[in-house]
Amino acid sequence: MDPIRIAVVGVGKIARDQHLPAIAGNKAFSLAATVSPRDPGVEGVPHAKSLDELIANGPAIDAVALCTPPQVRYDLAVQALSKGMHVFLEKPPGATLSEVVALESRAEKVGATLFASWHSRFAAGVAPARAWLSDRKIEKVSIVWREDVRVWHPGQAWIWEPGGLGVFDPGINALSIVTHILPRPMFLQGATLEIPANRAAPIAADIEFRDTAGAPIHMDLDWRQTGPQSWDIVVETDEGTLKLSNGGAVLTLPSGTEHAEDMEYPGLYARFASLIRGGRSDVDVAPLRLVADAFLRGHRKLVDEFHD
Amino acid sequence: MDPIRIAVVGVGKIARDQHLPAIAGNKAFSLAATVSPRDPGVEGVPHAKSLDELIANGPAIDAVALCTPPQVRYDLAVQALSKGMHVFLEKPPGATLSEVVALESRAEKVGATLFASWHSRFAAGVAPARAWLSDRKIEKVSIVWREDVRVWHPGQAWIWEPGGLGVFDPGINALSIVTHILPRPMFLQGATLEIPANRAAPIAADIEFRDTAGAPIHMDLDWRQTGPQSWDIVVETDEGTLKLSNGGAVLTLPSGTEHAEDMEYPGLYARFASLIRGGRSDVDVAPLRLVADAFLRGHRKLVDEFHD
Repeated sequence: MDPIRIAVVGVGKIARDQHLPAIAGNKAFSLAATVSPRDPGVEGVPHAKSLDELIANGPAIDAVALCTPPQVRYDLAVQALSKGMHVFLEKPPGATLSEVVALESRAEKVGATLFASWHSRFAAGVAPARAWLSDRKIEKVSIVWREDVRVWHPGQAWIWEPGGLGVFDPGINALSIVTHILPRPMFLQGATLEIPANRAAPIAADIEFRDTAGAPIHMDLDWRQTGPQSWDIVVETDEGTLKLSNGGAVLTLPSGTEHAEDMEYPGLYARFASLIRGGRSDVDVAPLRLVADAFLRGHRKLVDEFHD
Repeated sequence: MDPIRIAVVGVGKIARDQHLPAIAGNKAFSLAATVSPRDPGVEGVPHAKSLDELIANGPAIDAVALCTPPQVRYDLAVQALSKGMHVFLEKPPGATLSEVVALESRAEKVGATLFASWHSRFAAGVAPARAWLSDRKIEKVSIVWREDVRVWHPGQAWIWEPGGLGVFDPGINALSIVTHILPRPMFLQGATLEIPANRAAPIAADIEFRDTAGAPIHMDLDWRQTGPQSWDIVVETDEGTLKLSNGGAVLTLPSGTEHAEDMEYPGLYARFASLIRGGRSDVDVAPLRLVADAFLRGHRKLVDEFHD
């Protein structure tokens, strides 16, 4: 089978750190082009300043990975789908829920694959955690996601703009895991969002969810954590406690701890290839819907200004 | 056919003004009970202080209309569905999107009807407006919804709480019409929400949407309007301008103006009876999803305190 000719659109930190190495490591794909108005791209690979320019001048492309900020993804995705290209959306899949729903029906109409990716679902401990929880009674869940925004998002102004999600940008990773491993749907009961006086998006959040059987799920998000970072999910069940730490990489069950290699982006690209070959899409908006619910229903509290 | 024995839960302004008269006027229903912790109910009709009490002591009920504030609807709906009762949800159908999605699958599981009602869709001009627009090219849409909150929501504290939606409580009526009459889906591009310094929910909003063909849709919501009130939707098309005014009651087409009788709640109950008889549900979250998107992506601007 010929490899899928893919263009990476938006050559920022996540594209260089994750997408380009994952594409290079997967024989189902060949990197056909990069697209960025500023970044020079990758040596030896055709580069265009815009998706327009790429479509006009070639080379031929079968699929695009959209690694731009979410606020501009919709138009790029529509443009790509209109040419019959398959589309990989970095998380979150859009700046609004409605645009993702609209994209989904557009992809269906043109018969192209749309993949709303959630990289944390491919962390090593997630699949076994899901399997272990599938037939257990969930009693209580605690999510603690505390990191230093200056380390992980240095100078990224877009992340503080409306649509950039603030601390929910990492927090949605936790939600993508929890909605995947818990056997029942969850919904929000109440939330407090802490917004720096000089920004539009929250720097911290405290959220109460519960699942449809009533089990409480507490989430603690904070971007002001210096020192050790925390990306932990603890699930108490009728048969003991499950803990996912390091963002899903390390799984601890009552029987012991499993460490496995980080395969998030390789896992995503394997999934994208399989969706394309199977003529299917995968668009789960549940994590973004929970974040929208937090903005819709949360109390807002103004806190100290944040400066990079 | 025996009438559907219905209980009205939450006997506030909307129940007395609209639900009770609409039920009294529809032979498919008989009012079997009212439920309210404070309100004395209706003379000659059994009354319970809570849904628990009604379920424990009877009379037998086939369906409930939930007219409580949205923040408490989920638990009541789950309780009713668990007894196999059909559920009519006032708008908005919940305080969060995720709980409505969860309710929808629960109703499906127990084989009961769930009806997420949008009363403005039953305003007299809406069905003919939808028919007229169905094969026209939409060029531009303007929504102006300006009313005096002191007149329409006197002293209703819950509407200013998180989950109460503020000016989107009436604004969602406009969105329920627009999403119903426009031939293409729409999504949000940007929004400014004006929040009184002493409240959690917006008193005004300015929002830019567009449809999936690119037509701009502007919405102007304001709760500080004294004097004449405005509930107008103007749709410019390639074959002239359509105007819906008075909240959808009055339709003006290039050929002239149609006035018709207000049949919103009678229309809703006719629909609910038909859904129950047909074993179907009707849960369209699109209007609430657009509101969630406005909270997710909107700029917030603090404005003067609001006091009733």
